[in-house]
Amino acid sequence: MADFGRVVIYGAGLIGGSFALALKKAGAVDEVVGFGRSVGALNKARELGIIDRVGVSHGVEVAGADLVLLATPVAQMAAIMERIAPYVGRQTVVTDGGSTKGDVVAAARLHFGERIGQFVPAHPIAGAENSGPEAATADLYRGRKVVLTPLAENSADAVEAVRKAWRLCGAELYKLAPEMHDRIFAAVSHLPHLLSFALVHDLAVRDDSDLYFTFAASGFRDFTRIAASHPEMWRDICLANRDALLEEIGSYQAELEALKAALSAGDGVRLAEIFGVARAARRNWAENQGK
Amino acid sequence: MADFGRVVIYGAGLIGGSFALALKKAGAVDEVVGFGRSVGALNKARELGIIDRVGVSHGVEVAGADLVLLATPVAQMAAIMERIAPYVGRQTVVTDGGSTKGDVVAAARLHFGERIGQFVPAHPIAGAENSGPEAATADLYRGRKVVLTPLAENSADAVEAVRKAWRLCGAELYKLAPEMHDRIFAAVSHLPHLLSFALVHDLAVRDDSDLYFTFAASGFRDFTRIAASHPEMWRDICLANRDALLEEIGSYQAELEALKAALSAGDGVRLAEIFGVARAARRNWAENQGK
Repeated sequence: MADFGRVVIYGAGLIGGSFALALKKAGAVDEVVGFGRSVGALNKARELGIIDRVGVSHGVEVAGADLVLLATPVAQMAAIMERIAPYVGRQTVVTDGGSTKGDVVAAARLHFGERIGQFVPAHPIAGAENSGPEAATADLYRGRKVVLTPLAENSADAVEAVRKAWRLCGAELYKLAPEMHDRIFAAVSHLPHLLSFALVHDLAVRDDSDLYFTFAASGFRDFTRIAASHPEMWRDICLANRDALLEEIGSYQAELEALKAALSAGDGVRLAEIFGVARAARRNWAENQGK
Repeated sequence: MADFGRVVIYGAGLIGGSFALALKKAGAVDEVVGFGRSVGALNKARELGIIDRVGVSHGVEVAGADLVLLATPVAQMAAIMERIAPYVGRQTVVTDGGSTKGDVVAAARLHFGERIGQFVPAHPIAGAENSGPEAATADLYRGRKVVLTPLAENSADAVEAVRKAWRLCGAELYKLAPEMHDRIFAAVSHLPHLLSFALVHDLAVRDDSDLYFTFAASGFRDFTRIAASHPEMWRDICLANRDALLEEIGSYQAELEALKAALSAGDGVRLAEIFGVARAARRNWAENQGK
């Protein structure tokens, strides 16, 4: 018997699709049922062997599921929770793959009510430029970090079920409080995305933008890779984590103002000091990540 | 007989060393003589076959050179120009590999005086995270862009000598006015470097910076790759291109302020619009670069 009988995924794209493929590859699931807004994407996911069938009745599928993964954009999760909450079985554990946790937890508390203990929030850190079922792979999570932000109401069994699923995907597990999670990801993920979008937009709206893009090279390529990310997904993430992100933008603006002041004053000592601290930290990070 | 008899390079690191290796590989040079501030680096460059010998007398070497490449950080170029100007032979063409052109041209006019026609400014676009002779390769410039910013005083022969050398390195050649060059590179190169340094510095100076770096992932990695660049080199570039860079910082600050306002107001339509324009431009750029 597999670790999980029925797994239901909402959203069979990169995140949900890769989760399903990994569990299947591990032989850890009897069947995967998919729901989603796009019929085309669901059919594609079925053709690709990501899901075994497209779900028909939310109530029936969720009631009989061991594990439900919400892998849609964060902005759609509240509506799904509302829809499935009445049908969550005694054995069902619900989790999510959202990039923000404060808003997801708030929605879960509202909709799951006294069943909140069955919802274990999580965030797999596996951003990728591409999306959709075609981008999903069984190895996406191998060696990647997955952050669980368990709630006081979660039973040890519910948390363990989610941990086990992610371990079977090959992920490394971490635990954070939801608020701390959101602060950290505003700084290391959401802000860089916003900054990268901002740079490309700033160039793209110029009359002579072609001339600028002609001479953009490898530094630009790396800096702006994340500006090719999905606009609606990032709109939702930014809005979902608005408060923490606004705080990080403010901190960054102060940093930029300090650099501008040093540059205006021709203060090479200060510039080299800031650049030097950054370089040392970046190199140290790269060495530790390369373990 | 080779295309170039003696080539003298000032700075046998990534830029100068790769230039020398490429010309040697093409069989286009009789001998390469190196000067530089670090005796260790020059000896290393000789061991690696980048230069044939370390220069002794600036006057003697430059007077007998067909081509002189200034491949030091931009801040050191004026002093070198002053030192070599009296010795430039009738056949000698001097060029440079600096990332900024306005300041280099101004220094060249000052020091070369009536021999300014023998100085052909250039900028090979081949940034790399690493530096020093060990980082140099004969293929660095293959398929890369090199921008010449010729002066009104340059003879067609002098310009052609520099073009030929870079063609032999496998580069694609472009031509821009020095001022336009500096405006473009402030936007597509210098600003992204400064922004990347700023983000890493902002995180590195926090008391709990380790916690932030632990969860930094692939988006952060790409965005901050250029923050591992050489601090003194980038201090010099920023100072050398100060006016254009300050203008770009101002434009970027306005962009950031607009994003902040949209986020504060919860204006998802505007956020998605900005992100969407950026994504389309970034994808279009990537497709054209991938030609």
